[in-house]
Amino acid sequence: MSRFVHQRHRPSSVLQHPRELVLACPPLRSNVNLSRIVRTAGCCGLRRLIVCGNPRIDPKIARDSLEQVEIEVRRSLVPVLKRLKAERFQIVGLEQTSNSVSLYNFEFPKRTVLVVGNEREGLSEGILNVLDYVVEIPVFGQPNSYNVASATAMALYEYCRQYPAG
Amino acid sequence: MSRFVHQRHRPSSVLQHPRELVLACPPLRSNVNLSRIVRTAGCCGLRRLIVCGNPRIDPKIARDSLEQVEIEVRRSLVPVLKRLKAERFQIVGLEQTSNSVSLYNFEFPKRTVLVVGNEREGLSEGILNVLDYVVEIPVFGQPNSYNVASATAMALYEYCRQYPAG
Repeated sequence: MSRFVHQRHRPSSVLQHPRELVLACPPLRSNVNLSRIVRTAGCCGLRRLIVCGNPRIDPKIARDSLEQVEIEVRRSLVPVLKRLKAERFQIVGLEQTSNSVSLYNFEFPKRTVLVVGNEREGLSEGILNVLDYVVEIPVFGQPNSYNVASATAMALYEYCRQYPAG
Repeated sequence: MSRFVHQRHRPSSVLQHPRELVLACPPLRSNVNLSRIVRTAGCCGLRRLIVCGNPRIDPKIARDSLEQVEIEVRRSLVPVLKRLKAERFQIVGLEQTSNSVSLYNFEFPKRTVLVVGNEREGLSEGILNVLDYVVEIPVFGQPNSYNVASATAMALYEYCRQYPAG
């Protein structure tokens, strides 16, 4: 018998503190990308996701995450990001910009709002203006940029790696 | 003006050595998942992806990765994994099993074949038998498992973080 035996879908790890990570998405072009992001956020133990526009989250993709992640719909992100900043959150954008830091070297503040960009336009000028940090994920080949849901998965992974207990 | 200025789609980082990471996928249920995996593999600088069955890769999702990543189609994975093992590759499965190691604590061998599982069935018994290691990604909430393309993105990210120069 193999020394590796399936234990699929076993209960998730228990966080010692609720996640202080909030995810914020501008209007995305693809509801599939958004739904995938919601699922990953759920797996990572997030409780709060701020979305914009008129999102349609596909429950076949997002699964049980919708029972855990509270989805807040806003008309635009800048006012809510400013409020969260006043509540001592650091606002971290995920984007390729000047002065961005590699995700490999970034120590996430525990109390972080991670802001991801639209598939085509990235983060708007208004959002860039309220960010405390920008992190980017190194790319080593073609195409030159990650899909937004894949990039979000990597950034959430990195945060959870730094805060495995919440 | 913001101190963060867009530099989207800038040229990718240059690897000092070609990636010695090979990705292997059993037949997946979803060609969308497979196509997303191909795109991420391309971004991560991979050159070789072994797939099974009758895969249809959507070029709208996979983008330019198809110019870089050589797709090898096989009838089944076990024989090719055994051959790669003889070529000094370590075979690493991505799965929740007994004796699996958290991806947070796993030092990837440079010369690795990463094997991901089918969305529903995971890795087959035959594949489990040829693995040198199994890594799993901690889950902290609902649902209890990551989507295969998101999990693959996280594992490829972790490998690249450990080998940023190839």
